[in-house]
Amino acid sequence: MNDYSVFCVSDHTGVTVESVAKSVLAQFPRLECSLIILPFVDSVEKAQAAAARIAAAPRALTFSTLTDPALRAPFHQAGLSLFDVFDLIAPSVERALGQTATPRGGHTHGMAHDYEARMDAVNFSLNLDDGLNPGRLGQADLILVGVSRVGKTPTALYLALQYGLRVANYPLTPDDLGQDDLPSCLKSHLARLRGLTLAPERLAALRQARYPDSRYASPAQCRLELDAAEALFERHAIPVVDTTRMSVEEIAARLRPA
Amino acid sequence: MNDYSVFCVSDHTGVTVESVAKSVLAQFPRLECSLIILPFVDSVEKAQAAAARIAAAPRALTFSTLTDPALRAPFHQAGLSLFDVFDLIAPSVERALGQTATPRGGHTHGMAHDYEARMDAVNFSLNLDDGLNPGRLGQADLILVGVSRVGKTPTALYLALQYGLRVANYPLTPDDLGQDDLPSCLKSHLARLRGLTLAPERLAALRQARYPDSRYASPAQCRLELDAAEALFERHAIPVVDTTRMSVEEIAARLRPA
Repeated sequence: MNDYSVFCVSDHTGVTVESVAKSVLAQFPRLECSLIILPFVDSVEKAQAAAARIAAAPRALTFSTLTDPALRAPFHQAGLSLFDVFDLIAPSVERALGQTATPRGGHTHGMAHDYEARMDAVNFSLNLDDGLNPGRLGQADLILVGVSRVGKTPTALYLALQYGLRVANYPLTPDDLGQDDLPSCLKSHLARLRGLTLAPERLAALRQARYPDSRYASPAQCRLELDAAEALFERHAIPVVDTTRMSVEEIAARLRPA
Repeated sequence: MNDYSVFCVSDHTGVTVESVAKSVLAQFPRLECSLIILPFVDSVEKAQAAAARIAAAPRALTFSTLTDPALRAPFHQAGLSLFDVFDLIAPSVERALGQTATPRGGHTHGMAHDYEARMDAVNFSLNLDDGLNPGRLGQADLILVGVSRVGKTPTALYLALQYGLRVANYPLTPDDLGQDDLPSCLKSHLARLRGLTLAPERLAALRQARYPDSRYASPAQCRLELDAAEALFERHAIPVVDTTRMSVEEIAARLRPA
């Protein structure tokens, strides 16, 4: 049973308006709502159709990122209030700058260039996933290290997709950890190493899902590996992120170079 | 030479405030600026340090997502104006709801559950990358098909990371295209297939970067493969996205089920 249908209307992907709506609604903890994303509302006809759909919903809230006032008009004509990110924020920015905003599509510039850089970064991160191609580690922006299932691959891919960073990842195996030193191929790249760690019981649960009741998934083995990895991180002054209670966005934001 | 230093201050990852700042600033095309992200400003001490840093910058603008008024106070005390997403949007929402916002950290709820679903989706997408494990195609939310280098892998990974969707991808090789029919393993999953295509000259450029001056990268070969793939998409009524001028966010937003 949902109190409100929350529509997120965008003339582009809807990524911005969705994240704004979620953040603002998190401040209203008693509110139950379901989110409906309406992306690419980039013509008056589509805006009219979206407005008609929202007007027909019993209890609706509408967040939007519609830069063109002509696209906002059909919503106002339908008697709907919009929480529009530009409408609410741009006037303050205009005052601060002493400049008037020029409405145009919600594209940030340089997308094509950005796209290729990010695709290259993804390909790089896939090619240097899980210790592959160690000869290319010198080309990486960051090298994530940690034990198996600590979250290296998703984090590397998120950093590549979101920020265009070339992120390798290298597993610390029980064999490596038994040597009581970093694998030699990592030692020439110390400044770019970042350690990932996790609470042993979380790691055990993740491994358990993959290989139930194995030694690999036992809490004792997880603790042993994590302790050895953390000792290596400390000895080499490698910055560490404990991912136990973090989303991939949080992990990536902490790892991203300033 | 940058006109303005634009600071994006967040008590969390900064993903929301960065995308808002970029979208709003895109409406001021004459403005030159450099973006500085200050994430995890989640204590009064960190807010004071951030405010001091911004106050020392010659021409600064500050966007923020700081839910707690106590974290905004140091900026005001330093004489800075904030374009704060909550501050500017929450009052309108409060009026519409007849409820007062309860400031708390910018976390959207259910993160832990969400995290695991997305990590599972990433692992699934990696395990079913590029035609691997076709026996598991029945478990996919979506199956991306298209010729080599059309952007299937990054798109699948973005959908998995951003939306938690289990997205397989399957290459249409020249051999497949020579059969003039879909590979048989795809035919039992027609409703979940999505085609990707691209302008031949863009594809040729992407392939050229990988295998310079190969037949694979020649414009004629690219055109041949794309034409054959598009004919298959049309014959089987597979929805198609032309990715030529799109960012990975745009492609993903178009593919995401409503």
